[in-house]
Amino acid sequence: MNKRCEAHVLAAALALLTQKFGNRLVTSQAVREQHGNTLTWVANQPPDAVVFPQSIADVQEIVRICAAHRVPMIPFGTGSSLEGQVNAPHGGVSIDFRDMNRVLAVHAEDLDCVIEPGLTRKMLNEHLRDQGLFFPLDPGADASLGGMAATRCSGTNAVRYGTMKDNVLSLKVVLANGELMTTARRAKKSSSGYDLTRLMIGSEGTLGVIVELTLRLAGIPEAIASGVCPFPSVEVACNATILTIQSGIPVARIELLDELQVKASNAYSKLALPETPMLFVEFHGSEAGVAEQSRRFGEIAAELGGGPFDWATKAEERTKLWQARHDAYWSGRALRPGAGVFATDVCVPISRLAECVTATQQDIVESRLVAPIMGHVGDGNFHLTMTFDMADADEVARAKALHERLVARALAMDGTCTGEHGVGQGKMPYLEAEHGRAALDAMRTIKRALDPDGIMNPGKIVSFA
Amino acid sequence: MNKRCEAHVLAAALALLTQKFGNRLVTSQAVREQHGNTLTWVANQPPDAVVFPQSIADVQEIVRICAAHRVPMIPFGTGSSLEGQVNAPHGGVSIDFRDMNRVLAVHAEDLDCVIEPGLTRKMLNEHLRDQGLFFPLDPGADASLGGMAATRCSGTNAVRYGTMKDNVLSLKVVLANGELMTTARRAKKSSSGYDLTRLMIGSEGTLGVIVELTLRLAGIPEAIASGVCPFPSVEVACNATILTIQSGIPVARIELLDELQVKASNAYSKLALPETPMLFVEFHGSEAGVAEQSRRFGEIAAELGGGPFDWATKAEERTKLWQARHDAYWSGRALRPGAGVFATDVCVPISRLAECVTATQQDIVESRLVAPIMGHVGDGNFHLTMTFDMADADEVARAKALHERLVARALAMDGTCTGEHGVGQGKMPYLEAEHGRAALDAMRTIKRALDPDGIMNPGKIVSFA
Repeated sequence: MNKRCEAHVLAAALALLTQKFGNRLVTSQAVREQHGNTLTWVANQPPDAVVFPQSIADVQEIVRICAAHRVPMIPFGTGSSLEGQVNAPHGGVSIDFRDMNRVLAVHAEDLDCVIEPGLTRKMLNEHLRDQGLFFPLDPGADASLGGMAATRCSGTNAVRYGTMKDNVLSLKVVLANGELMTTARRAKKSSSGYDLTRLMIGSEGTLGVIVELTLRLAGIPEAIASGVCPFPSVEVACNATILTIQSGIPVARIELLDELQVKASNAYSKLALPETPMLFVEFHGSEAGVAEQSRRFGEIAAELGGGPFDWATKAEERTKLWQARHDAYWSGRALRPGAGVFATDVCVPISRLAECVTATQQDIVESRLVAPIMGHVGDGNFHLTMTFDMADADEVARAKALHERLVARALAMDGTCTGEHGVGQGKMPYLEAEHGRAALDAMRTIKRALDPDGIMNPGKIVSFA
Repeated sequence: MNKRCEAHVLAAALALLTQKFGNRLVTSQAVREQHGNTLTWVANQPPDAVVFPQSIADVQEIVRICAAHRVPMIPFGTGSSLEGQVNAPHGGVSIDFRDMNRVLAVHAEDLDCVIEPGLTRKMLNEHLRDQGLFFPLDPGADASLGGMAATRCSGTNAVRYGTMKDNVLSLKVVLANGELMTTARRAKKSSSGYDLTRLMIGSEGTLGVIVELTLRLAGIPEAIASGVCPFPSVEVACNATILTIQSGIPVARIELLDELQVKASNAYSKLALPETPMLFVEFHGSEAGVAEQSRRFGEIAAELGGGPFDWATKAEERTKLWQARHDAYWSGRALRPGAGVFATDVCVPISRLAECVTATQQDIVESRLVAPIMGHVGDGNFHLTMTFDMADADEVARAKALHERLVARALAMDGTCTGEHGVGQGKMPYLEAEHGRAALDAMRTIKRALDPDGIMNPGKIVSFA
């Protein structure tokens, strides 16, 4: 299994799909390549065809046809994943949820909503705005919510609102046998049986296809304050973050930019920040609450030798700041126009973060690479945007070696090889080192049990032969 | 499988265990019955023996011996579960974690700690107090933390701090094959592979034995305010709860007591509350923060026709209040001394809570039963303490019928048959109605894959033959 199926079997499956879906089944080279597209150095491996379902019943039909022919299936949201999650190393059919992007219900009293997986987070928040509600997770990219669940996405707000595992109440999932499973009721909590919701979140389509989500929502805060705070070193910035969280200040975002990232953001986003390590911070609450929190954070920063903390509650200023933060990936790219870019992340216990970032900065210098760092420091999670000349084999090799050492460094600090980008193809080599053989065997056992033919996004997370 | 093993096979396994564990393997009738003990109407089904491991290696040895003889194993914490989780319907060995109750590490900067499963939540909080930290989950009983993870426990604080699924970073688990698995690193978040942590939480020992936990901690709040607020009806109390949460007021506890529960608590805990539906409310934060939150909650209550909200920040008053709340089970029992008691819970979307509670109150009256109601209303979760005369077959039948209708009512409202008591034996009959066949089949598939011989706490959650 996990092998490309024979040409005539594939042709038979595609013929059945064409019969059912007409021009919603596409096999053109351009469309196929778009669907193997990745934003990283993982090579493009296009699927054999792309199909655009419009309903759960459509997805069940697709899965049944593919399963009967043992054709691999790869769910596709917006293609913004970074570790090759949507690639088709064994060929097969990409299931693109573009046309399944409706809000099915908003339950304002329960602070939840029911949506289709192709809906993006910005579309959802647009829909919710006049009800005073929002979906708080914000990975930067306008990703599909199905994809965000599939990769256990988090982002800048996770320090306060949690990751996708904390913000999904229930999923509908089409299993490898074509059956439709509902993972949980809409009740806010339950202790009824195995947590199928969390098992599916982060499984990247390898255990089933997410076809509907019930999401938790938050009330739009009465007041938001954000600001920037310079620090003499990454270490002091990290210590300020630790103290802020220990003090119970409910910070909504707390983002570290290292000197190089500040420089890159100044250039790309036309800011004029001092080129020193910097925290971008945001508080959500009542007017009085965010003022108190901002004041207390400013005191902590000052006490440790950082600051001044320059904060504001005006929406335009906030927007400019967070736009710059979200454009960090592009600003990193802009440091070396035309260069290749590899964005990766790790996550460590927050007590080890300063040490991990500082050692990584040193490693970057010694590797003669240009790689700004930014991080969701409240979670101990940071990103490296490695830029390199794709034509320079030596530089690519140095970048790859840096990446290997980054992962090893995080694992040695009881961290993870991937904080929020998922596993896909890119992080598969590190899973045994991270989880140990017994846990990886348990994952394989679960995969084999729920997908015995190995047709659900094969070649991702765990392989079995 | 799932059958009681033959006497000579059991004897061989117990002989090996005795050889290894000496007098830490106990087969006396009294100790066996204590370990089948339940606080509910599920009948006592004692194990064949009880063993007291002192280390992970001990547990691995026990599991290997039992597995080689296909002897069932039932993990045991403090025996405070309510749905027959520790019963031994197929006999076997109870693994009592009494002697594994150490705090192995506290990482104050990371707000986490590493502990053994037999440690109780009160022991942990005692240990943490002088570091300014606490473990926020509070189910009332001084349960073992291993048991709390195994049953996906929550309790009064869950509305703010989440359930066990949100407060466990990682577990060490001995699997059915005796191998030791670590479910995750100590990093605060990860998107690396299947969520084995959450799969184990709530699995009640049916997929493996939890032998170590890494827990998230919280800082002890600078200030705590709590108080009581009367309401003219359950509906108004629920609406006040909904509005409080929608407004983003970070309430730490919000507990509903119905008229009868208030009466019972007045009598048992020597309070003098007006006998009307009541919310017990608590806020955690800064001095200014809890004052603001208390004021805003009081305004909401008043606006809807409830109140006055009588709050205080003095520790003694708070303690008395929450002790009364925690003694609700005993106060319910005291309503009918000598009567049997069955404590059960369901959870529904909060928008349906008032309707569900009110219909249940009506049902209790029509059933001619005495059954006070209290609830973690911020989560839509409520408890029924049914009292009945065990010798009165008709009354027992009416109590069972009431329970059936309670579950059916919760499921009809998109709720769950068990908000926080787990499944055990008591809720098994309702799982197919709640989850549907596809999800229950998926649970069975996972159970069969990880425990092919059906020896890990058989006869709980899902059965397979």
